[in-house]
Amino acid sequence: MSKLSIGVDRGGGRPAFRQIADRVREAVAAGLLAPGDRLPAARVLAAQLGLARGTVDTAYALLAGEGFIEGHGAAGTIVSPLLSPAAPPPPPAPAPVPEIGQVTGVLPFRMGLPALDAFPRTLWSRLAARIARRTGPAELAYPDPAGLPELRESIAAYLRVARGIACTPDQVIVTAGFQGALALAAAALLRPGDPVWVEDPGYFLAHGALRAGGARLVPVPVDPAGLDVAAGVAAAPDARLAVVTPTHQATLGVALSLPRRLALLDWAARQGGWIVEDDYDGEFRYSGHPLPALKSLDRADRVLYAGSFSKVLFPALRLGYLVPPAALHAELVAASRVLQGGLPALEQRIVAAFLAEGHFARHIRKMRGLYAVRRAALADALAAAFGDRLSLTLQAGGMHLLARLADAPPDREMVVRALAAGLAPAAVSTMSPSGRAEEGLLLGFTNVAEAAAPGLAARLATAIGR
Amino acid sequence: MSKLSIGVDRGGGRPAFRQIADRVREAVAAGLLAPGDRLPAARVLAAQLGLARGTVDTAYALLAGEGFIEGHGAAGTIVSPLLSPAAPPPPPAPAPVPEIGQVTGVLPFRMGLPALDAFPRTLWSRLAARIARRTGPAELAYPDPAGLPELRESIAAYLRVARGIACTPDQVIVTAGFQGALALAAAALLRPGDPVWVEDPGYFLAHGALRAGGARLVPVPVDPAGLDVAAGVAAAPDARLAVVTPTHQATLGVALSLPRRLALLDWAARQGGWIVEDDYDGEFRYSGHPLPALKSLDRADRVLYAGSFSKVLFPALRLGYLVPPAALHAELVAASRVLQGGLPALEQRIVAAFLAEGHFARHIRKMRGLYAVRRAALADALAAAFGDRLSLTLQAGGMHLLARLADAPPDREMVVRALAAGLAPAAVSTMSPSGRAEEGLLLGFTNVAEAAAPGLAARLATAIGR
Repeated sequence: MSKLSIGVDRGGGRPAFRQIADRVREAVAAGLLAPGDRLPAARVLAAQLGLARGTVDTAYALLAGEGFIEGHGAAGTIVSPLLSPAAPPPPPAPAPVPEIGQVTGVLPFRMGLPALDAFPRTLWSRLAARIARRTGPAELAYPDPAGLPELRESIAAYLRVARGIACTPDQVIVTAGFQGALALAAAALLRPGDPVWVEDPGYFLAHGALRAGGARLVPVPVDPAGLDVAAGVAAAPDARLAVVTPTHQATLGVALSLPRRLALLDWAARQGGWIVEDDYDGEFRYSGHPLPALKSLDRADRVLYAGSFSKVLFPALRLGYLVPPAALHAELVAASRVLQGGLPALEQRIVAAFLAEGHFARHIRKMRGLYAVRRAALADALAAAFGDRLSLTLQAGGMHLLARLADAPPDREMVVRALAAGLAPAAVSTMSPSGRAEEGLLLGFTNVAEAAAPGLAARLATAIGR
Repeated sequence: MSKLSIGVDRGGGRPAFRQIADRVREAVAAGLLAPGDRLPAARVLAAQLGLARGTVDTAYALLAGEGFIEGHGAAGTIVSPLLSPAAPPPPPAPAPVPEIGQVTGVLPFRMGLPALDAFPRTLWSRLAARIARRTGPAELAYPDPAGLPELRESIAAYLRVARGIACTPDQVIVTAGFQGALALAAAALLRPGDPVWVEDPGYFLAHGALRAGGARLVPVPVDPAGLDVAAGVAAAPDARLAVVTPTHQATLGVALSLPRRLALLDWAARQGGWIVEDDYDGEFRYSGHPLPALKSLDRADRVLYAGSFSKVLFPALRLGYLVPPAALHAELVAASRVLQGGLPALEQRIVAAFLAEGHFARHIRKMRGLYAVRRAALADALAAAFGDRLSLTLQAGGMHLLARLADAPPDREMVVRALAAGLAPAAVSTMSPSGRAEEGLLLGFTNVAEAAAPGLAARLATAIGR
């Protein structure tokens, strides 16, 4: 016992015997007392500490009851030999090296972020404060695993008006963003090894969620008309699931053509396959008119329509939604219950109010205008910085530009150089599960202010070599 | 075209050609226009609407470009035959029948809820308002998939003091409650069909998350010393994972004895198995002293320590945490990234502030006192209402009572009768994956106010038959 000092605090709330027992336990956990080590006799320790003998006896009895120490009669009291000697605590695992495309932080050109500077934060925080104040006891309990009714109501109303999807609040399931939606779909639909069509190139985080769910990914090429459905049917007619971005293909930005849409729906109906429609940025369209959602053409009820608030509000919310086929609804809600126990109520209530009070529609309208300006400004700036080498595809919508550069190093190498200069474009080749996609740079324009575009474009040109 | 009427709103912001195209698309989606149906000639429609001929031509060109309609020269314009005829939208799936034990709403005796009436809601909403106000643009981006640093810092500090776990903030991973922690563990650890020890009886929602992750459940009996480790080793020595509640067994309320703790750790070290320690209500202890966390004895680094804020704050938060072995840290963080994209930042920041400012420790202290009172009051009331038939096990801690009744109907039947009377006890037998566990009623006491206990106990006795 010489290895540890026991101090007893008489002013504190905890009884002295508890303090002694705690100190012994800590010493064992920390390795200061080893199994078999002898403790001082209760009488001796009591005298040292100026305590009644009974106090130390109580502490020792407590520790003996827990199996920490053993009384050996006249031979004294020892630390239980059952306890193995303490090893030093293991060092924490090293942080994983971030892969290209998995950059965190708000660097210029980063994909998939809305204009964070333009979000109505003051309005949002007023709503948050009001809703937090109105929280009653019942709203602290487990939330409905399908999502709060008021949020499902707002989402259904929005989808009817904005995306031509006739759905009731009962059909909507609130998810942890698009990743959460995919995790639910994988849990409800996939058996290990099930083939799943994914766009090549496509959204790499979706690939991770599908692989985690047991999928065998079948890369299906994307051309100017979107996913090549015939190629998918040729490669894996028996796929369980196809994950597509029909409005604005997640990498190349093209829209899935109507004949392809119909072919995809036809495949699903004939083969009993399912389709996840990831409509991640359908709201942002700068010219022409959007095709209605694939879901709105879904006569055989095979489409899981997935939307996210990450792109239209902000990603830290971690909220999105699914409108699944009727046959899958109950299983998806059950998956939400067991995998996450529902989603945070406060966030759901804030979003519901933001939608119901009309702020959402106004915000999207405002962002559509802002993005059109930022997109044009960045396109002009890139043209000025790169000149003839640059070939820029301006799709009708979306939140990023696709730049192809003549006489350029491999796109991954350009990204590494850009990252070193504090810029975060992404490489098309890293989005390709087959590795066969063309090369190119993806440049998010939503966080590039109009005035900053020329400077950032020049910095990019310098970083990757003019 | 007689089947639909087109009205053009000249005051609105949308151009007339858009309005016409929208109306046609909606009519196709709703089945008012079938494939092959003829549209009115542009000239005729323009005259009807009092618009320039060019306006209607533009709308038709837009629709033709999208593949919705086809011009057939002198034969006129028809709805594309590629479009399949509309079916009525499918009816929403019926809500799943709630299983016993999956009751929602705050009914008396419901398990697993803290005292929702006693939560400091005013303080919480003040914190929420302050933190929402201080949200900057960077805090709107994707959150760190391991959890916000300030929350991990607070959790590590709390675990060092309260549970004897020496860990750094880098080792902590924030999760979507305990269900979310299990989902991450399953994604990172389990291959399909891997055997997993679960307590019998035990926490049924955990069983669901494990099954969804591919586990083959191996029920291991629980006796008064907790999980029967020897029985687990006999049944499946090669289990990949053991999921246990050592502090206060999730159904029977017993503590895992020290020899069993050491045997469990020894099994994991020898066999390369992993242990999930679910310390869901370790904070609530009314007599005696808690055994330190299993994790604090974990020399071979095999324990994933899991805690939840559902029981100590409130479930609608959907936040918990894991302290995993170093070897698993990177894989678990990667699973968090792909399965959920991190957790809501606002909620994480509120909890971090609640912990850092000392409210958490005060709240737990207050609840410990309140629960001791409510537990005693309910125990007394049940004894008065049921008399000699009742055998009540008062464990040292936890948030529910285990009642055994002589001459009683099966426990599931008692639960059905109680539910009909607006009361939500749970049946031990429904918590048993093997179906072999004894019977009994589990009664959450945290939401039963002292004064209400006699009335509720009498109502329960009447409902299930005296």
